[in-house]
Amino acid sequence: MTLWDEIHEQPETLQRIIDRNRDVVADIAARINEVSPSSVLIAARGTSDNAARYALYVWGARNALNVALAAPSLFSVYHQPPQLDGALVVGISQSGESPDLVAVLEEANDQGRPTLAITNHPDSPMAQAADFEIELHTGQEQAIAATKTYTAQLAAIALLSSALNDNIGSLSGLAADVGIVLAESDRIAGAAAMFADTEAAAVLGRGFNHSTAFEWALKLQELTYVLAHPYSTADFVHGPLALVSRGFPILAVAPTGKPHATVHELLDRLKTELGSRLAVISNDDATLGLADAPIRIPAGPEWLSPIGAVVAAQLFSYHLASAKGLDPDAPRTIEKITRTT
Amino acid sequence: MTLWDEIHEQPETLQRIIDRNRDVVADIAARINEVSPSSVLIAARGTSDNAARYALYVWGARNALNVALAAPSLFSVYHQPPQLDGALVVGISQSGESPDLVAVLEEANDQGRPTLAITNHPDSPMAQAADFEIELHTGQEQAIAATKTYTAQLAAIALLSSALNDNIGSLSGLAADVGIVLAESDRIAGAAAMFADTEAAAVLGRGFNHSTAFEWALKLQELTYVLAHPYSTADFVHGPLALVSRGFPILAVAPTGKPHATVHELLDRLKTELGSRLAVISNDDATLGLADAPIRIPAGPEWLSPIGAVVAAQLFSYHLASAKGLDPDAPRTIEKITRTT
Repeated sequence: MTLWDEIHEQPETLQRIIDRNRDVVADIAARINEVSPSSVLIAARGTSDNAARYALYVWGARNALNVALAAPSLFSVYHQPPQLDGALVVGISQSGESPDLVAVLEEANDQGRPTLAITNHPDSPMAQAADFEIELHTGQEQAIAATKTYTAQLAAIALLSSALNDNIGSLSGLAADVGIVLAESDRIAGAAAMFADTEAAAVLGRGFNHSTAFEWALKLQELTYVLAHPYSTADFVHGPLALVSRGFPILAVAPTGKPHATVHELLDRLKTELGSRLAVISNDDATLGLADAPIRIPAGPEWLSPIGAVVAAQLFSYHLASAKGLDPDAPRTIEKITRTT
Repeated sequence: MTLWDEIHEQPETLQRIIDRNRDVVADIAARINEVSPSSVLIAARGTSDNAARYALYVWGARNALNVALAAPSLFSVYHQPPQLDGALVVGISQSGESPDLVAVLEEANDQGRPTLAITNHPDSPMAQAADFEIELHTGQEQAIAATKTYTAQLAAIALLSSALNDNIGSLSGLAADVGIVLAESDRIAGAAAMFADTEAAAVLGRGFNHSTAFEWALKLQELTYVLAHPYSTADFVHGPLALVSRGFPILAVAPTGKPHATVHELLDRLKTELGSRLAVISNDDATLGLADAPIRIPAGPEWLSPIGAVVAAQLFSYHLASAKGLDPDAPRTIEKITRTT
């Protein structure tokens, strides 16, 4: 399977993870609610770390959980792990292989804390180390750049959020919305072609879509070698805004929702005052109207928008690689499974 | 005062924050130990967020505290803050002004959780909202790019770490070590000049110096408009490594300490296998030997190395701005105090 196939398989893989995990996740949620953790610590790297970033906002905003992203080196390099009193410890990894992430779950076991693994491989060291597991059920991911396992991780996080609130029905339109984004592929190819000369860019998002900005930037780094830096729009104005010269490429994820007004305002300033070149993923006409390259996604609840939005970002990155004459199935230097210590 | 003056004032400002806060911090530490928080949540943006990243490792490794960086928008944009049971909530901000950060402390107050502000302005909204305050005592910082307030924030974090362990004497050599780095200014100017044509770079560090990589990148973004992207060396090999073409500039912070062997190994691979152009801040001869532009800092305990290392990074960024014909005292677009909501 090529990257193209895996991107296009996502309506199916999303429906599968939802259907197969409904009962599993309801059961895990019940057991987590029994434990009633006072915080959640997530260990992840690369694409999975961007899924963790999504969990930070979703489990924070919808489940009032105090979520932190772990510094795995405290466990694996320094061997001076923090006290995890009250914490639920979660590992997110496609392969479930990386020793530094497994070390975080093993330490949690030693401290008697509950552990959850979200992985595509139920027989992996991470899954073996965890009390609970949500399996991604995407089938083998062969492309080096992760796509279908990322959206499956987001769906797993969203499922658990809904189950913790005893309302698991809310993900029904997700696969269909991704299908609508995939049908925009030709238009997204046109948008990407406008950025064929791009060597560097800033990628902006906020709140639930902070994660999407990070994942869009990572896909661009892996597939197109564009030096794409992700930022929360709020962090961006605390310094990095100085980077912006006329024509500087800004890629933004700006669906309607709570942060939309401030994101729109910044994009307006970037366009009209600083002369940025804008590609924007949104469902809002006014925000899309600011963009040199508008990329429309379906309207929907803001908290689920990162799934459709990232599929648009995957297509943009794929088409930009093609426009640059690169092979998206053969990124240089990197390998599918990275084992860090 | 210019940026140059403020960089050079740091031995004095560091000694001042240590001397003036010794008793204050001992008292705060005693009260924190009484509360015995099960986690720490830090709200910060920009340079201060890089100080928070230092606290994540220092308070984690030395004080076994489970430290998280807050997502301020959960408080200020979504108005759906997490439950902060068991948490100590810390705000870090030069100005103490940004409404989204103050919102995090105010929510902690509403939830009856203890709060600490680390700021240069004791009459700021953040300081007013906090139960405890560590004042930076640097005097007014006039340059737009923060330098002396950043090292003062690191010193405040280090002081509190030592006080929590009842051992506050360990910071005595700090100001002198920074003086030694400042005396290397001409050599660092020579290193920076070798990168005068640089438009983009990756900045690497791990563990305690993860923070230094982030702050070096931010200074480069603000002062030189170089698209400098910071990474943990472990995250870098999970994807972004694909960015590296022959001659690609890599800036690394690699003092001796626990992660040194893995960082050295990656730099060796970047140099010999991938042909990167390397600038390296280190005290290790073998690691400096890999670098096209070696930048030597004094040997010392790894956990305090980020202070000397970041002063070297500040000088590098300052001299690179000069080499590019830019005015380090007038970065475009950005302002000294950024108020985000």
